[in-house]
This record gives sequence, C-alpha cells and structure tokens, in this order.
Amino acid sequence: MAGNTFGVLFKIITFGESHGKSIGVVIDGVPSGLFIDEDFIQHELNRRKPGQSAITSQRKEDDVFEIISGVYNQKATGAPITVLIQNKDDKPSDYDHLKDTFRPSHADYTYSVKYPHRDHRGGGRASARETASRVFAGAIAKMILNPLQITITAYVSQVGDIALNTDYRDLNLLEAENNIVRCPDVAIAEKMIDRIKEIKKDGDTIGGVITCIIKGVPAGWGEPVFDKIQADLSKAMMSINAAKGFAYGSGFDSVLMKGSEHNDVFINKDNKITTITNHSGGIQGGITNGEDIYFKVAFKPIATIMQKQQTANDKGETIELMGKGRHDPCVVPRAVPIVEAMAAIVMTDHYLRFRSMDFSTE
Amino acid sequence: MAGNTFGVLFKIITFGESHGKSIGVVIDGVPSGLFIDEDFIQHELNRRKPGQSAITSQRKEDDVFEIISGVYNQKATGAPITVLIQNKDDKPSDYDHLKDTFRPSHADYTYSVKYPHRDHRGGGRASARETASRVFAGAIAKMILNPLQITITAYVSQVGDIALNTDYRDLNLLEAENNIVRCPDVAIAEKMIDRIKEIKKDGDTIGGVITCIIKGVPAGWGEPVFDKIQADLSKAMMSINAAKGFAYGSGFDSVLMKGSEHNDVFINKDNKITTITNHSGGIQGGITNGEDIYFKVAFKPIATIMQKQQTANDKGETIELMGKGRHDPCVVPRAVPIVEAMAAIVMTDHYLRFRSMDFSTE
Amino acid sequence: MAGNTFGVLFKIITFGESHGKSIGVVIDGVPSGLFIDEDFIQHELNRRKPGQSAITSQRKEDDVFEIISGVYNQKATGAPITVLIQNKDDKPSDYDHLKDTFRPSHADYTYSVKYPHRDHRGGGRASARETASRVFAGAIAKMILNPLQITITAYVSQVGDIALNTDYRDLNLLEAENNIVRCPDVAIAEKMIDRIKEIKKDGDTIGGVITCIIKGVPAGWGEPVFDKIQADLSKAMMSINAAKGFAYGSGFDSVLMKGSEHNDVFINKDNKITTITNHSGGIQGGITNGEDIYFKVAFKPIATIMQKQQTANDKGETIELMGKGRHDPCVVPRAVPIVEAMAAIVMTDHYLRFRSMDFSTE
Amino acid sequence: MAGNTFGVLFKIITFGESHGKSIGVVIDGVPSGLFIDEDFIQHELNRRKPGQSAITSQRKEDDVFEIISGVYNQKATGAPITVLIQNKDDKPSDYDHLKDTFRPSHADYTYSVKYPHRDHRGGGRASARETASRVFAGAIAKMILNPLQITITAYVSQVGDIALNTDYRDLNLLEAENNIVRCPDVAIAEKMIDRIKEIKKDGDTIGGVITCIIKGVPAGWGEPVFDKIQADLSKAMMSINAAKGFAYGSGFDSVLMKGSEHNDVFINKDNKITTITNHSGGIQGGITNGEDIYFKVAFKPIATIMQKQQTANDKGETIELMGKGRHDPCVVPRAVPIVEAMAAIVMTDHYLRFRSMDFSTE
Repeated sequence: MAGNTFGVLFKIITFGESHGKSIGVVIDGVPSGLFIDEDFIQHELNRRKPGQSAITSQRKEDDVFEIISGVYNQKATGAPITVLIQNKDDKPSDYDHLKDTFRPSHADYTYSVKYPHRDHRGGGRASARETASRVFAGAIAKMILNPLQITITAYVSQVGDIALNTDYRDLNLLEAENNIVRCPDVAIAEKMIDRIKEIKKDGDTIGGVITCIIKGVPAGWGEPVFDKIQADLSKAMMSINAAKGFAYGSGFDSVLMKGSEHNDVFINKDNKITTITNHSGGIQGGITNGEDIYFKVAFKPIATIMQKQQTANDKGETIELMGKGRHDPCVVPRAVPIVEAMAAIVMTDHYLRFRSMDFSTE
Repeated sequence: MAGNTFGVLFKIITFGESHGKSIGVVIDGVPSGLFIDEDFIQHELNRRKPGQSAITSQRKEDDVFEIISGVYNQKATGAPITVLIQNKDDKPSDYDHLKDTFRPSHADYTYSVKYPHRDHRGGGRASARETASRVFAGAIAKMILNPLQITITAYVSQVGDIALNTDYRDLNLLEAENNIVRCPDVAIAEKMIDRIKEIKKDGDTIGGVITCIIKGVPAGWGEPVFDKIQADLSKAMMSINAAKGFAYGSGFDSVLMKGSEHNDVFINKDNKITTITNHSGGIQGGITNGEDIYFKVAFKPIATIMQKQQTANDKGETIELMGKGRHDPCVVPRAVPIVEAMAAIVMTDHYLRFRSMDFSTE
Repeated sequence: MAGNTFGVLFKIITFGESHGKSIGVVIDGVPSGLFIDEDFIQHELNRRKPGQSAITSQRKEDDVFEIISGVYNQKATGAPITVLIQNKDDKPSDYDHLKDTFRPSHADYTYSVKYPHRDHRGGGRASARETASRVFAGAIAKMILNPLQITITAYVSQVGDIALNTDYRDLNLLEAENNIVRCPDVAIAEKMIDRIKEIKKDGDTIGGVITCIIKGVPAGWGEPVFDKIQADLSKAMMSINAAKGFAYGSGFDSVLMKGSEHNDVFINKDNKITTITNHSGGIQGGITNGEDIYFKVAFKPIATIMQKQQTANDKGETIELMGKGRHDPCVVPRAVPIVEAMAAIVMTDHYLRFRSMDFSTE
Repeated sequence: MAGNTFGVLFKIITFGESHGKSIGVVIDGVPSGLFIDEDFIQHELNRRKPGQSAITSQRKEDDVFEIISGVYNQKATGAPITVLIQNKDDKPSDYDHLKDTFRPSHADYTYSVKYPHRDHRGGGRASARETASRVFAGAIAKMILNPLQITITAYVSQVGDIALNTDYRDLNLLEAENNIVRCPDVAIAEKMIDRIKEIKKDGDTIGGVITCIIKGVPAGWGEPVFDKIQADLSKAMMSINAAKGFAYGSGFDSVLMKGSEHNDVFINKDNKITTITNHSGGIQGGITNGEDIYFKVAFKPIATIMQKQQTANDKGETIELMGKGRHDPCVVPRAVPIVEAMAAIVMTDHYLRFRSMDFSTE
C-alpha cells in the first residue's frame, strides 16, 4: 500500500510500468506562479535516458514528456502537476521467456511472492525506468530551490576500484557533465570509461559510487527527531534501484577518527557563525547548519549480465538463463541525475516544512 | 513539525527532553491481546542505560518506566500505549555555562537558529536520551515479531580501526551480550575495550560500526517503490544520534564486484526458493526474499570530549570550552539495543502493512 | 499542499482541471489480482456524466477513460492504477469573460487569493469535473467490496421542499436508477423532476439531499478515536462540491429524542448480536456494529444561474454577470454516484486498515 | 491503527483510558517561543469538566494537568508538548457488572468485536473523558490563533425541541458563558435548563445542537480538493463522542433555497472584497473567503440512562441493565468547549499549511 508516495508537503506519487503505456508522476505542493521551464526538464531527462553514450544501455528511449495538469500558460497553478512519459521502445514479446523465471538479484521472485498477479515485462514496476518520473519531479524541485541560490551537483566518484579521492572542494564540479561517465577529474574519468567498456565487452557489469553536494541551504532546515535531513536523504537515496549504501559528511571514515579530530569548531566569519572543518556534512542534530551538505551513495553492479547464469523458475526447476536486450554495464553515469533529483525533492519538502514554522521575519 | 512521528501502521511519537520531567513515547498500532512482558522491556532499557560498565558514561539513570495507557491486566488493549521514563539525574545548573555556547558538532547552534526559544540543558530534545523511548517501542515491536520466529540481533563490529571482519554466519551472535563492548568475538572485544579505555583516559572519544542481522522474515514484506525495506531501515538508522552511514547486504563493498560475482543465484532447496549467496542482504526490489537481512551503521566519535576546545557563543565571540559531566567515550556499545529497536519498529510496521494486503490465505 | 490525497491504505490522488488536457486519478492500494471490469467502470462514469437526461447539464462529455498503469491483462498488479479521463468539450474562450470576475458563491475569489496564478477556465481545479476521478476510484473500490457482499446504494431523498420521508427499509432502492432524478419512489420522483424542470426554465437552480445505505459491513471496522467511520465518511462527503451538511443514523433528528427512545437495544438473533432499532446508523464508538450504515448529505443550489447577477471583479469594481453555458439546475441526480464512490473509497480504506490488525482467524 | 492521530502540521495524538492512570495528548507542531498560559488552559478544562453545575454529571474530576515536555520557562520550545491529566475519581469496581455486558448504544459491543482484549471500565478508550485531551490541545491552538485576532466561540443553540433560532449576528455570544447551559439567549437558556432538569429527574437524557462561529480568518486558508476547510471541520466534529450531524453555512436549509437566493454577491467594501450575505459560511471551494465561518453540530441523547433497559451480554443472553453512576442528562453544555477545541485544532493546522505555501509577502 501507499509505498509509491514520497514527501510531506512537496509530495510525489510515481506510477507506471516499464512496458505499460507510459510512466509518470503527480506532484502535489508546487507553488502557484512557478515558471515551468520545459527545456530544463528535457535537459534533466536527457541526462538520465538510455542510449546517451557508448557506456550506457543502447536502448532508444527519448523520454518525451507531456504535462497533463497543474500548469497553465507555462506557470504552475498550485494544483497537482501530472506528467506522462511515454514508453516508446516496448517489445513485450522480448520478455516472454521471463514470465516464469526468477532472474538472479532481480525483483522477479519477490514480486511474484508479494503479488499474485504481476507485469513481468522488463521488471514492470520494479524497473529503473520508474526513475525518469523522479527526475521530472526533481527538475520541478530544482526550479523551486534555484531562486534561493541552492545548487545540487552529483558526480561519479568511483567505478569498481577506480576512485576519485580528491576532496570535492578541490574539484571543478561542472567538469563532470563534460564526459560520459560524469566524473569531474578528466584523467580518472578516462580510466573509469575504459573500465566500463572492458566490463561491457565481457558481458558483465560493475558497481560505483556517486557523491552529491548541496550548496546554499541556510541553517535551520530539518526536523528532529525522525525527519532529520540525513534520515530523509538516506531514505530517498536507498529507494533508488541498485543503491546499497549511504553516508554523509565524514561517513564511514568518521569511525577511524577521534572526537578531538572530528569536531567542527565554530568560528565567526564576517558576522556569520560557520565551522572551520565540515565533517558534519552541513547537518547537526538533523538540522542544516549553513555549511555544504555532502553525501555519497554506493551502487551495486547491475544484475542483468550478458552471460549464462543458472537460476530457478517458478516451478522450482533449475534453468539456465542468458541475458538479452540492451543494458547498462554500470549504473552510475545515468544515476547521477537521479541522485540529484531525489536530493532536490527532499530539500524542497524540508524547505516547505521550514516555511510553515518560520516566524523569524514576522 | 511532526518530525517526531515514525511509522505508518505501527506508529510511534517520542517526546521529552533530557532534563525535563520525563521522556516517553506513544505507540499506536499494537495488537489487542499482546502480552506485555515488563521484565523484557526493563532488560532492553538496561542494555541502553548509562552507567552499565566501565566503558560507558558513569551517569546513573535507572530508566524506570511507567506505562500510562493501552495496557490492562498486562495485555495490550489495542489503544495507544504510552510510557513515561523519568529523568532522575538532572542537575540543570550543570548546564548554565552552555546556555549561550555552541558546542562543536552538537545541535546547539542549529537548534538556536531553528527555535527562537529552546531548552539548552543537556541537549534538550537533541539529547541521545530520547533513544530510551525508541528502545521501549522496540521492545514492544520485538514482542510482536517474536511469535513469528523473527529475531533481530546487533553487535559491535568495529571500534576505531579495530574491526571484526568475520562473516556474521561464522559467529556466535549470542556471545556479543557477554562482554561490555558487545562484540561477539572475545579476542577482538578485548582489544576494543582496551582502545575505548585508552581513548577515555585521554578525555577523547572514538567512532564505531554496528552490524545488525534480522532472521526469519518471510518473503514478501516491503513496499515498492519508496518504502522499500532498505529505504525505511536506512531512514530509521540515520535518525539515530551520531549515525553517519548505512549499508545493507554487500553495501559499499559491492562497488568492487562484478555482476557475475555479485548476483545471488536462486536454487530450490527443500521445495523452497532460496539463494546460494546473499549479497542482496535479504532484500530484492525493496521486498524481502526470505533470506537473512543484514546491514551496518557507522557512528562518529561522540562530540563531547573532556578536552579544551575553541568554539563560538551566540554573540559570535570566540570562547574556550571544557567538557564537563560523565559522557561515553564511544557510542556503539550502548547503541546496539537502539539499532535493534529501530530495526524492530521498521519490521513491525511492514508486517502490519503486509497483512493489510495479504490475501494468500483466503 | 497535499490536499489532493485521500485515504491511508487505499489512497487516491486526483489531478487535472476542467479545461486542461484531461483529469485523472492515481490509486495506490489495489490488491494484486483484482479483475478490473471496464464495463462496470464506464457504467459508473455514465451515471455521473453530464448530458444524460433532460434535467442535467446538456454538456457533452463522454468520460471515456484510459488506464495508464497498474492493470495488466485486465487484472490489477498491485502497482498504482492511473487513469486519464479526456476533457473533450473544451472551448476555453467561453471563459475569457471570467478571467478577472469573481462569480458569486464560486471559488474564483478564494482561488485568486490563494493562488497568484490560476487556471480560471470553468473553475479549473475547483470544477465538479474533478468528481469523475472519484467515481473511477469508487468503481475500483466497489470491485474490492463486492466479493464481501457489501453494497452501497445512494438515492435522491429531497429536491427543494419535495422530500421522500419513507424509511429506506420500506423502499425498493433499485428503483432509483429507473428514473432520471434517482429517487426510488416513482410518484415523488415525478414531482422532483417537474420541480427541477420548472427551476431550469427560470434559469435558476435548487438544492437537494442524497441518502446513502451501506449494507453488509461486518462488525469491527473503524478506528478510534479520530478515524471513526462516521468521521471519515463525513470528511469524504463534505469534500464533494456543493455539499453543505452530513448526518448519519438518526442525525439531526436525534436531538429531539430521549435516550430511552434512541438507544438501540441489543438482542440475540440466530446466534448473532444485533439491535432492534438502528438509530446508531450501524456505527457505535466509531466502529461498525454489523447493522446497516446510513447517512444523508445536503447539497446547496448550484451557484451558476442563467440570470443576471451583480458581483465584483478583481479590481473591486461592481459588474453585472450573466451565466453562460450548459449547467445543472440541480446537482443531486448526478451526485448520487459521487456519494456512492466516496463511501466506497472510505469503506475500502477501512477494510484494509481492519485487515492489518485482524488476528481473529489466526 | 493510527486512528489516534489528527492533523498534518499541527498534529495531536491522544492517549489514555477513562479509568487508567491518566489520559493525555502529545502535540507536535507548536511554534517555539509561544507563551503557554496555564491559567487559560485550566479555564478551558474547567469548562469541560464534570461536576461544574446542576445539569451536568456530578462526578468530581478536577482535570489537573501536568505538562511533561515541550515547555521550558513557560514557553514552547518547538518540541512535542505532552500533557498528563490524572484520572482521580476512579472506582473500577463500579464497572465489574459491565465486563461482559453490551450497554445499548455504547461502544461495548463494537470494541469487544474489534479488540480481543479491552479495558471495559467506564468505556475505556471510548469514554468521553478522552475529550479533555482535545480541550488541552485546543487551548494551545487558541493561543496560536489569538495573536492573529481569530476567535472561536461556540454555544448551545438547541436542547430537545427548544431551539434558539436567532441569527448569531444578532446575539451577544459572550452571554453564553454566563449560564450553565451555555446558550447566549437568557430566556431560552432558562427553558433549556428546565428541560434538562426535568429529563434528569426521569433518569433520561436528551440531545442538542451546538453552533460555532469562527471570526477573523483571512481569505486563502484550506486545501483543495479533499482537505477543504469544511471537510476537515466536519471530520473533527464527527469524531466527537455522540455527534450525529454537521452542517456549515446555510447547511441543510440550503436545500430549500434557489441559487438566486443563496448566492453570496461580492461587493467592494472599504477596498476589501466581501460578500453581502454569507450563506457560504465563510468557505468557497474549500477555501476561506474572509467572512465568518459558522457551522452546527448535532448531538444525540447520551446512551447512559438511569432507567431499566433490556440488552444482551457477551454470551448472547438477554439481561436487564440499570444505569449507575453520575452521568450527564444532556451532553451539549459540556461539549461547547470540545467543539471549540476541535475547531481551533483544524484552523491551526490549516494556518501552518497555509504558511508553508504563502509567498505573498516575499
């Protein structure tokens, strides 16, 4: 029930299966009067779409969207915004052999247990195609945050064992969009691209890490004690297909540190309280402190491989399976805009929640 | 607003500040007729309370609880269960010097921005004392899961750089409760204890990792696409004070693996579909697959240290601060029952959600 | 924000404006495997659509629907069901004169205050056209309740001062659908029809009352203390356009009764606890008791009249307004399926909520 | 599940049974810095408490409250406010005879079906004692609305067939608190009091109506399409024990009117859009229009009568029951502050919801 909804005041519900008529999302909580920049939305969708480069799935999905409601004369009315994104490239017969087969590490088995009747084609509702809806909603969220000078930038920081260890403050983040793996360090990007091509040649897949930076959020957003910013970001990220881990600020590395090293000392800089270091990742007690928010998300190697695998079918028989179709050898290049979108959705929700209780200007 | 509530059908709201009259929790969604074992609840609270060993805070809090509603003749009535846990050890004057001071990496500053009027004593609402309420609610949740043969066991798997790398399947998890650091490997436990004592002597603190294993959950729990089991577990864990990272199944290590290595092959074992490996951590497509669920949570070094630190006050002046009071040198030994409690709360909520849509027995 | 969502476990979000591309609804919480009878859905939509008789609006809206997601091979998959209902009869230029005019007793003024930018055409989001989405969702809900032998039947019990005072138990409720005003007493139906035609001739409108009967609900549904069945039914009904009052069981008449007359005495009938009278309307303490649930809803005369009216525009100038278009002289004949739909949605939600906590068969 | 929570941003959860240790409420969403006037709270609780006059129950409940959390130095901190109201007058043995008896028109039977284990004493959770928690929360809500010049005033407008038909605009509403029945027309109040005394002498009970006026709400509050102000008010009122009907503005009387009579014409008065009449009851399209909001609530005669009644017990045997204890002959005098409290809670919730999306001052 109701697991398809996310957010409290900026609320989205996504719908649609990968091989149904279309997928889409309804967004409730968009301020009336917001200019809806369709070019920007398309730009964001294009960053996620398959077929965009040599290291992504070669499927052709143009992700053309149609806004059905909530926008009039290019501006939001305050009513729910609904969008449809057509499923163009569907050859349902491609999936007949999967009707009663449980692909390893896919959701086929769990869905078949949970749902007596399911749409098995291309993963149905479990397909990563659903994330296009999130990117649309994220684009709307970014338009709300943009006038506040809040920017959200994600990039690929690891593919397999090729890691970019440079501190994000020493990187030109804009560089990430200039290469197909979306890593802001050109030299490392090339290595990552080579690794992915290699893996692809073997019909195999590989995992990766995405780092995300949110700049410009003022102090005071977030709600104790369960709806801490990091808790909501974490849920948002872990709801993305193939995500296996989340860490913010100093993350797992904090374990190795002493309190005396880890503590972020407050100083007064130009009449503004700030911290010298930022191991806290911009969040203290679940509430933003005005510093950069940063976190990373680990993604597993995609389950669909172009190799023979053993598995079971719904009769419990052992069978052999051979991956078909056009799939990604590594999820992270296309997951960058998804991570950004979910981050934007969380921050916009907390922005509205903050507004409801902010009496500071009265 | 409303950030103090957690859960959909098994719903808790915690309340209370560390130095107010008492803290507590209201739990809505407890099945009528459930036997409430007060001894077990006290046992769980004792696992969390300070003063329990040489490596925890020496504060004396007995965490005596009083059930106010929802229980009649030792059984749940189905009405909300409310509990109060008295704050016994309050010396508010201890905190006068913190009234206008922003302790490094604490919530003092962010709370002061968010809340024009706040209770600064001992962290107030931001204090880890709030987690006693979670442990109470987790004890109720465990009583609901127990008849289903579901067990939830957490243990300390890392303190600083001392890590227990043995697979949990090769450990006797029950051993964890036999030592004060709660690590099931006795030799490593001793090293951890020594490290914590050493750190304590320096007036410093250190981080750690907790691993949690959930056994016995049948296939089919969890809700696509946002309320995936791992997403809800992640939010639950990241809402705990000092948590910095979450990873389930193969977690961040999955990044280094190829799909062909990582995929969990389905086999038929005694007429039950199972997997040979379990990199999926018992969850596929956000839904349980009947295998063990396991995850880990990283905790930073606690911010309160017994050393001199520079910081700023609310006038923006640089001041020097010296930690006072009796604090934990490492959070993980006492966080073990908190991790278990939050896991139990998430699983119980999903159990009730599963029930609402499970027509398999009709 | 988020006011477009209704329900806890059977959750709907409606979207769309009267003169946008289409309206629609997403329904989360439909059991997988449910057969989706499209003929029945169309039948329900036809009961609501304009142009169906001489006493309704003569607008032509065929309310053809297209299911976008959640249904595969004619059965629900358990994923969100999304439907689009095209807006066919839109002549937006018809509404140019209303762009800056506040029609009396319409939502033009309040929307213009709340939303800096709005879609003024035909009421936009405030239009009763939105109720087609509710009727669709109600049809799905009825399909869930149907196998439980639960029936929901509404009828027109008053138009202006022409009231049907016969107890519903003495009526053949099925008769209601045999005449265009939907009143099960043929003689009174004719009087009502005449009255509406008369009113229409004057270019005026008139109010009415709808009575609704829910049969077959077992004892035990409903949640104390806020989510009482009558509270949720009341909210559902009062959210319908033009609804002004709600009363269940003995309703406002109970005020005139003494407790000794009003109390429903329990008796044992064929080994089942039942009540002799049913002033309680099938609900006691907010929970169903197994007797018929019945309630009534008052509807005001529709605001759009074909007469000259004075009003103000957005500059605060007094202007004269003349109703245009094809509107209903009385809302109740077409509101009958809407009342049934909202009742079905409420009862289905409580059915799922009941299931989550019902351990009686274990 | 979770039926004990009310509100979105101003959220309350009530708990406790009539004969448990205490009842209470947690309120999440109180602005930090709000002065908490305990005298005012006590004043409100006293208006509801039994034993206050010759025409209410003679039970002695002082309704002394103790704030447990969320208030520091007499001001709200922004954390959840929790209160306990002790149950002082409990003689549980008074209720032994009711353990297995289903009192007519009480919740005994429905609770016994829903909850395998229940607290039968004095109605347990179903007791109207729960409404003291609502009055507490309502007092907090009034303190939030008060600086906005919003006032909420309810009064008794009918007892049995004795009705006050004067328009509320022609009454001195403050007069209501000057007599024990809370009717602002002194002559009619006396008749009502006599009627209640008479009924009480017979050991019987009688119903009544409460009218409530909300003044000072600006235009623009309320959320289309389900969370209309009237829908949320209606749910709030219908969740009160013994409430049987709700109507706002012209209510059920609107049925008799023509559109040309009913429409509220907009005029420009002192550069403010206002309406000449107010049949809309201050709400159009679910959103406030700046005029007075008014509504009425019908209450049935209380089920507990001091007369012999036949009923059934849990074995299905017919038994005879004689009311015991000290009960109200008519609920409405004490329900006046409850109606006000629920109205204040709804309006405060919508105030915060409005704030989150109000960009008009930016």
